[in-house]
Amino acid sequence: MRLLRTGPPGAELPCAVDGDGVVRCLSAWVPDWTGAALSPGSLAELAGRLAGSAEELPEVRLDEVRVGPPVPAGGQLISVGLNYRCHAAQAGMAVPAEPVISTKSPWALAGPYDDLLLPPGAERVDWEVELAVVIGTEARYLPDEQAARAAIAGYCTANDVSERSWLLDRGGQWVKGKSFETFAPLGPYLVTADEVDDVAALRLTTRVNGQVMQDAKTGEMVFGVPWLIRYLTRFMVLRPGDVVLTGSPAGVALRRIDEPYLRPGDVVEVEVETLGAQRQRCRAHPVGAGT
Amino acid sequence: MRLLRTGPPGAELPCAVDGDGVVRCLSAWVPDWTGAALSPGSLAELAGRLAGSAEELPEVRLDEVRVGPPVPAGGQLISVGLNYRCHAAQAGMAVPAEPVISTKSPWALAGPYDDLLLPPGAERVDWEVELAVVIGTEARYLPDEQAARAAIAGYCTANDVSERSWLLDRGGQWVKGKSFETFAPLGPYLVTADEVDDVAALRLTTRVNGQVMQDAKTGEMVFGVPWLIRYLTRFMVLRPGDVVLTGSPAGVALRRIDEPYLRPGDVVEVEVETLGAQRQRCRAHPVGAGT
Repeated sequence: MRLLRTGPPGAELPCAVDGDGVVRCLSAWVPDWTGAALSPGSLAELAGRLAGSAEELPEVRLDEVRVGPPVPAGGQLISVGLNYRCHAAQAGMAVPAEPVISTKSPWALAGPYDDLLLPPGAERVDWEVELAVVIGTEARYLPDEQAARAAIAGYCTANDVSERSWLLDRGGQWVKGKSFETFAPLGPYLVTADEVDDVAALRLTTRVNGQVMQDAKTGEMVFGVPWLIRYLTRFMVLRPGDVVLTGSPAGVALRRIDEPYLRPGDVVEVEVETLGAQRQRCRAHPVGAGT
Repeated sequence: MRLLRTGPPGAELPCAVDGDGVVRCLSAWVPDWTGAALSPGSLAELAGRLAGSAEELPEVRLDEVRVGPPVPAGGQLISVGLNYRCHAAQAGMAVPAEPVISTKSPWALAGPYDDLLLPPGAERVDWEVELAVVIGTEARYLPDEQAARAAIAGYCTANDVSERSWLLDRGGQWVKGKSFETFAPLGPYLVTADEVDDVAALRLTTRVNGQVMQDAKTGEMVFGVPWLIRYLTRFMVLRPGDVVLTGSPAGVALRRIDEPYLRPGDVVEVEVETLGAQRQRCRAHPVGAGT
């Protein structure tokens, strides 16, 4: 299934897209794409019910409503760093012996087409296309990669937007550069795991103002998806709706010639094959530069 | 007011303690200590209502129920590092020019008397008594410290439990050492801001098996509470129920003679003056050492 959420920020309703591209609102059946609704059993049951009686659900016109992030804010946003050799090399950093894990504020979550707000004073806002994993069941100390796969509800496209000065120069922990409002566009869809044949074979691309900036395959990850999920459960519990951003390939603005960080008016398009494309227009945060 | 939550993990009900120590369940009035219930207006209204008609609420016997964390899991757990000169010196680290910010998994939250689960293979689990700030209103780009004070619902005692090997040696970002299940005991109370005369004048203490390990005043912080809250809103939105752990003074196990990290059977008691005392018994995580 391709699941999404539509409506104003904080008041989105759960929807699904069928094979013909018809979007239907499922709020009569499920409260939201979170908690028990994301378990493999619930998702399988839902797929059966949709196959039988989708027509009784109201249709949603995507040209008339906002698309929100496919899961609500409130779960963890976990960000894996330097998980592509090419990106580590570009950043001038060594490929780590084990994953570098940081977090984004859950309140950074945004819809896939929402404006990207450039914070006052932020001079080095950078894109990072990433494969996002959405957790479907509570998980701790998973014994193997098979158990890790079973804990995954599905996958999304993500842009792990990062402000490099705050990330690198403002006190050593990356969370500062990754947590600004709107810095975690997610979606448009949560594509359930059963619909992704090979999560290591997906192409990731970023275009900025139409120019291709990132273009890689998820198979280039240093640490693959099931390995990462199992690894995370060694030091934290994962719960349904938690989102793991699995790292970005080469091609970010950092260390490019002239470092073309995002400016007001720029348009960023990130896409992960099968999972859908995002598009953000950059603009200055309305709080202004006076703070 | 002194607000708390009682009941099994994940199913706690909101309560309040009156001046005589009587605990009453407020679930008939408020759903939980989160969201709009934490705003200054809601808290003031609630205080008035409690003064008039508390007797109609059911009494709760604390010897019969578990005390949970005073706010539910789901908000941010933000941890300020090296915010006491004495602690930075003990850790062999420089006092930072601006706060070091890391995060804890929200699923690390625990009640003040819950067992502290030592993860399999964790050899360096350390205590950190801290003053915790609970946010009461959504806050972004706060203009000054007065606005920061107005965004605070109240304060709690916290133990920012940290596993030093995962924190320092496992890939550079601190979240790995701070996010294990039960590593964020909070409470027993959320003491509303109006009841704390001077948040910079509170004594913090830790005892391990009865021996005093930490003993300091919140006034020794490098960056004070309102300054920190304002600072945080420069790079992330804060929402009601977010918790900011404001750093720990000297006296942790790290770099003590013999580094007496926590072992099964140890009893940790942390207390912040006015905010109440916690007590955790350490035991091995039931998952066992085979993972």
